[in-house]
Amino acid sequence: MSRKEVFAVAQMGPVHLNDTKAQVVARLIEMLREAHGRGARWVTFPELALTTFFPRYIYDTPAEYDVFFEEGLPSPAMAPLFEAAKDLGVGFYLGYAEKIEMGGTMRRFNTSVLVGPDGSVLGKYRKIHLPGTKDPIGDREFEHLEKRYFEVGDLGFPTFETPSGRFGMCICNDRRWPETFRVMALKGAEVFMLGYNTPTRNIHHPEPAHLREFHHRLSIESAAYQNAAWVMAAAKCGPEDGFAMIGGSAIVAPTGEVAVRAVSEEDEVITHNCDLELGAYIRCSVFDFARHRRIEHYGPITAQTGIEVAS
Amino acid sequence: MSRKEVFAVAQMGPVHLNDTKAQVVARLIEMLREAHGRGARWVTFPELALTTFFPRYIYDTPAEYDVFFEEGLPSPAMAPLFEAAKDLGVGFYLGYAEKIEMGGTMRRFNTSVLVGPDGSVLGKYRKIHLPGTKDPIGDREFEHLEKRYFEVGDLGFPTFETPSGRFGMCICNDRRWPETFRVMALKGAEVFMLGYNTPTRNIHHPEPAHLREFHHRLSIESAAYQNAAWVMAAAKCGPEDGFAMIGGSAIVAPTGEVAVRAVSEEDEVITHNCDLELGAYIRCSVFDFARHRRIEHYGPITAQTGIEVAS
Repeated sequence: MSRKEVFAVAQMGPVHLNDTKAQVVARLIEMLREAHGRGARWVTFPELALTTFFPRYIYDTPAEYDVFFEEGLPSPAMAPLFEAAKDLGVGFYLGYAEKIEMGGTMRRFNTSVLVGPDGSVLGKYRKIHLPGTKDPIGDREFEHLEKRYFEVGDLGFPTFETPSGRFGMCICNDRRWPETFRVMALKGAEVFMLGYNTPTRNIHHPEPAHLREFHHRLSIESAAYQNAAWVMAAAKCGPEDGFAMIGGSAIVAPTGEVAVRAVSEEDEVITHNCDLELGAYIRCSVFDFARHRRIEHYGPITAQTGIEVAS
Repeated sequence: MSRKEVFAVAQMGPVHLNDTKAQVVARLIEMLREAHGRGARWVTFPELALTTFFPRYIYDTPAEYDVFFEEGLPSPAMAPLFEAAKDLGVGFYLGYAEKIEMGGTMRRFNTSVLVGPDGSVLGKYRKIHLPGTKDPIGDREFEHLEKRYFEVGDLGFPTFETPSGRFGMCICNDRRWPETFRVMALKGAEVFMLGYNTPTRNIHHPEPAHLREFHHRLSIESAAYQNAAWVMAAAKCGPEDGFAMIGGSAIVAPTGEVAVRAVSEEDEVITHNCDLELGAYIRCSVFDFARHRRIEHYGPITAQTGIEVAS
């Protein structure tokens, strides 16, 4: 028995500071149309897809950085994408910088939204594992200031029932933490959607360059295998105003195998006819959680944040 | 700054039903001597190293299967290995079937012991993630009856301070569960020692043969990377009385990269001069647990065993 559905991942090449959101959304719509023409019912777009990866720059006031944020769903900039997707009957994941008034306070998150093929908003996810720093490190080619511009997500790792099964969402650095995927899997997710912007250089410590792509791939392969789920991983990549980011967008099968991957650092649509039942035999054998997990021995994972060595 | 120490992994070729424990221990001692001659201070031997992988066979009474078990530490069969290691000043991990009287009851575990270079027993680990079944599936080329012969381990995932840093131990199927390594890392382990016996065929479901080795490698690479720790992975492999098992013994660096791997399915010693500080830069940047983990969002990992879909 199989349950097949074509999924697309829409990798994006660079978005420069001077590119307008209208230009970017036109690129997204072009890829949406290509994905639809290739039979896809779902498209995963990258993290912070509408602008350059602005956390590399230092801004001090909302007046300087609010230009990168969206208000409302769809925001005015996103509206043409929402319309085009609804017209085509294609659902999608889109990462964006979210600005929202909550209880009289203006709050900002690194967010993704899941929209169904019928145009309905199925839900949001707000990035939990924010990397980088709040204050500039200085003395670096660029910064990584996500903790400056965003709050830690407050929605946990929700999962969403769709016409094609249950999906979960995460964003960029979340993929390096096995807890991310395990929580979504325990909540029934069969598909993990992931957008990312990953610089080719580790500014925190010198490191061989090849490790950046290897760690990305290792993270998504192990996430898929250990949870018997499909992973849809979409990069924004290439040099944005000279600051290079890795590509490596991929669709990973529940076996942990990369089924298809992007081979450019430009706008590129990849698709795969994913059998959502492929994970089923794994979930009822080696990874039958109910039969094999031993939560009585996992205590430290939720009881302590950092390393604690018994004295 | 580096902190280097030579570690060895001693892969074993097959042990047949008719091989004696004395023959097996002689092979272990020969590999111990080779490892010592190549500068190693620590050797990792496989799971259930002293006998064939007997859980593939159906036995009904202790009288039939107790021949595979060890009593006492060292047991009489192990004693020559313990003596040789102490003479050479080499510490080791050894997997064995443990039979022990506790509170008037005879209990049996799939166990590993960690012995220091000075011959002292640093501690034991008892396998938690037992795969397979208690009752024979029947209609298969072989069985996988670990749940028949062993109880689930009762020691959690302890870690042990050694002259070379803090080590943790796990066994075979434990490596497929990211919880295993995360718990050990949260308890300060910098080195994970792992023995395994992994059949080349999945008897539970048909599966492409290459996945068995791929899943092994993916598990140990991601364990190393996600916890910035060294992994010492030792197989017993090759055909035991015709029942084939995978090799792929390896030493994996905290970057997730395989530093050295066995290329045979026979007795084979691999060594690497491991910089135990290599993981340090990772532990204080991308995987600085204290700064980045968000345990308030990990609840389901310890609160529920199986999948629970919100209604």
